[in-house]
Amino acid sequence: MADHQPRVVIIGGGFAGLEVARALGGAPARVTLIDRQNHHLFIPLLYQVATAALSASEVVAPLRQVLKRHNNIEVMLGEVTGIDPAERVVLLANGHVPYDILVVATGSGQSYFGHDDWAEYAPGLKTVEDARTIRGRLLAAFEQAETTTDEAAQRRLMTAVVVGGGPTGVEMAGAIAGLARQTLKGEFRRIRPETARIVLVEAGSRLLAAFPESLAEKVRAQLEGLGVEVRTGCMVEHVDEQGVQAGGELIPAATIVWGAGVAASPAARWLGVEPGRGGTVPVDRNLRVAGFEDVYALGDTALCQGRRDQPLPQLAQVAKQQGKYLGRALRRQVEGRRWPGPFRFIHYGNMATVGRHAAVADFGWWRTSGTLAWMLWGLVHVYLLVGFRNRLMATIQWLWHYLTGQRGVRLIPADIAARSAASAKVAPAAEATNPALRLVGRPRRAA
Amino acid sequence: MADHQPRVVIIGGGFAGLEVARALGGAPARVTLIDRQNHHLFIPLLYQVATAALSASEVVAPLRQVLKRHNNIEVMLGEVTGIDPAERVVLLANGHVPYDILVVATGSGQSYFGHDDWAEYAPGLKTVEDARTIRGRLLAAFEQAETTTDEAAQRRLMTAVVVGGGPTGVEMAGAIAGLARQTLKGEFRRIRPETARIVLVEAGSRLLAAFPESLAEKVRAQLEGLGVEVRTGCMVEHVDEQGVQAGGELIPAATIVWGAGVAASPAARWLGVEPGRGGTVPVDRNLRVAGFEDVYALGDTALCQGRRDQPLPQLAQVAKQQGKYLGRALRRQVEGRRWPGPFRFIHYGNMATVGRHAAVADFGWWRTSGTLAWMLWGLVHVYLLVGFRNRLMATIQWLWHYLTGQRGVRLIPADIAARSAASAKVAPAAEATNPALRLVGRPRRAA
Repeated sequence: MADHQPRVVIIGGGFAGLEVARALGGAPARVTLIDRQNHHLFIPLLYQVATAALSASEVVAPLRQVLKRHNNIEVMLGEVTGIDPAERVVLLANGHVPYDILVVATGSGQSYFGHDDWAEYAPGLKTVEDARTIRGRLLAAFEQAETTTDEAAQRRLMTAVVVGGGPTGVEMAGAIAGLARQTLKGEFRRIRPETARIVLVEAGSRLLAAFPESLAEKVRAQLEGLGVEVRTGCMVEHVDEQGVQAGGELIPAATIVWGAGVAASPAARWLGVEPGRGGTVPVDRNLRVAGFEDVYALGDTALCQGRRDQPLPQLAQVAKQQGKYLGRALRRQVEGRRWPGPFRFIHYGNMATVGRHAAVADFGWWRTSGTLAWMLWGLVHVYLLVGFRNRLMATIQWLWHYLTGQRGVRLIPADIAARSAASAKVAPAAEATNPALRLVGRPRRAA
Repeated sequence: MADHQPRVVIIGGGFAGLEVARALGGAPARVTLIDRQNHHLFIPLLYQVATAALSASEVVAPLRQVLKRHNNIEVMLGEVTGIDPAERVVLLANGHVPYDILVVATGSGQSYFGHDDWAEYAPGLKTVEDARTIRGRLLAAFEQAETTTDEAAQRRLMTAVVVGGGPTGVEMAGAIAGLARQTLKGEFRRIRPETARIVLVEAGSRLLAAFPESLAEKVRAQLEGLGVEVRTGCMVEHVDEQGVQAGGELIPAATIVWGAGVAASPAARWLGVEPGRGGTVPVDRNLRVAGFEDVYALGDTALCQGRRDQPLPQLAQVAKQQGKYLGRALRRQVEGRRWPGPFRFIHYGNMATVGRHAAVADFGWWRTSGTLAWMLWGLVHVYLLVGFRNRLMATIQWLWHYLTGQRGVRLIPADIAARSAASAKVAPAAEATNPALRLVGRPRRAA
């Protein structure tokens, strides 16, 4: 009877949680996947949504649709507020769900290193809303720059600062450069978008700390070739609506993107365990949370030791592999078979792309950069996208973008457009330079 | 010298305004197109965004990109607050733009017949935000229905009411039926989305007043075949968050869409003219506003007499034809040539689609319904979409949707998802029916 099957509750439908659920499809267990969104989100491509190259719909997949054919799995839209391990229930905003086996895959958020007030001015790249906000700010800033003639204000509007020299920051800075220098070029009458200033700020001594130094140097050169100012060894001291203060200098900027700190979800607090680095939940090599028999954590939420006792990095490929491993292991368990050996991470490589024909790839045994790396990057990311439709649409968007330089998704959300439109100081400042906006006494009549 | 060229200011980048601007590309005039959005919006397909079939990016086109190659045209993101005809300036929220020739193409909004407080519960279909709100509410309602076991609440969550039996209402009702009965079918474990109740309410005696009665009857049969309750001669009396009261009956509904009344923009007030029906600006057959020499109005904003002194309907094809006419006429004027004859509307026909293989088309000399009308509808709408990329993407989405029944854009905006997740009353009500949610004392352990 289904009623006697163990109840597996998975919190989070990201890379880790979704893989666990998939692996349990058809297993003798009742599986409930809880997420506060109705969709899985392909976060590594979110920066392309933020720069108008992809539509949000191309980087999401409805969880229900992905898991539709597995009758033993149910999806629940819910906001988890806590866990009661004694009673074995997950607490929701307005209810609770009992479990026999609990899988915590709640991912990570942005860390502002104690300056949470910076979040308003410097959104990270974790949700569809983050991406839409950044896209709106970027595009609205160029619109406002077009109608203002206050040179300092214009300069600020045409400056974007990206904080963090990891893959997210590097890809974001490159994509903003592409947007300004390629897509928007020639579409304005009073500003030249290709002169936009893009600054990439990194506190560490070099970009892409996880990559070999030679490739990091190549990326730096590629970014500088696109006109991005790369500032390594430069610490952010303050962020507000005017811009970023970093390395003692104020950089006035209308668009600020935060790609620096990663903070784990509140899962450690929920479970009452001593958090590891960045708020993570320490787990053993079976991904089991210390002190619990049937609670597992994985992905960005978990602190898991890899080879030479180094903690595994917070990467999509770690989350995915852990999800597959744990799903299969739990499947064996509920089928009454032996738990497999401990989790082993296989590092397939790192990739980062900066722009057209500009990327780096590190497979350990082989490193490459330039066009080949860029093409590999595209292939791998299309392959990884969940759902054939998303692969197809993203491929077409990219081909289109490549062939025409146009970006398909240049939508400014209404609230940002309204603020922008209202703040456009068109006259009298504009009179000086723009004939169409000049107002000298009573206008002449048409001939 | 460019400075002596007349200044043409166009307010609004919809079907009418965009055509005027295009026709003036390269003309001896300095053209400024002002819009409060950075994009043109293909409103006739917005209901497909609201029902997750198309992505918002597929029904918008960035105004700058569309007009890029015309160096005499500039695009301005701005919120018009008024017009000063004596000084010949358009007033913006934070400035002003002088004109020699003014073209008012500000479109229309929803009219709630004096009940503006209904707007919150029953959004119309005029903006991308409207469509995203409706999509979010529709999808979130099914999510909430899945987790509640209060039968009355579940019934309300699985009910959608569409107000207005014109093309918008008919297409919307049909699309919601398709979403529930086709796309979402089989994805839930405790509700059957295909049993959703969809009610189409129309105050008049029949649907599609602009179509021949025989086709309106066909559409009614097509809708009823999809399980839509069609209520004609039924007046809406009240709308609130609980639902709609219509024809003396309260219909509890979580999703309400307003496709009934159309109200023109505040252009008549700006110009200080006596408004026509629905707040429109009366114009002569040259589209000139009475009492002004160089102010024109067209599209939904304008009240223009057609044949037999019948006012022209507020349709995209009227706006487009007027825009082409006025753009060419103004071009002749600024080139010093003669103004052409008066505007003549050529009615190419009406179409409405209800769902797969279900549509009607009326070309006056020929009427058809069913699969052929549906295919024609698709062809015509792909052809009309602005921009080759949008045509391509929409075609692929439609083919995909047709072949698989899946919809690509099932995104619930975060704010709606959060409200929905927080209000999901999972327990104890859910305990009664859902084994996964049952909590009986201390849960059994897994075997």
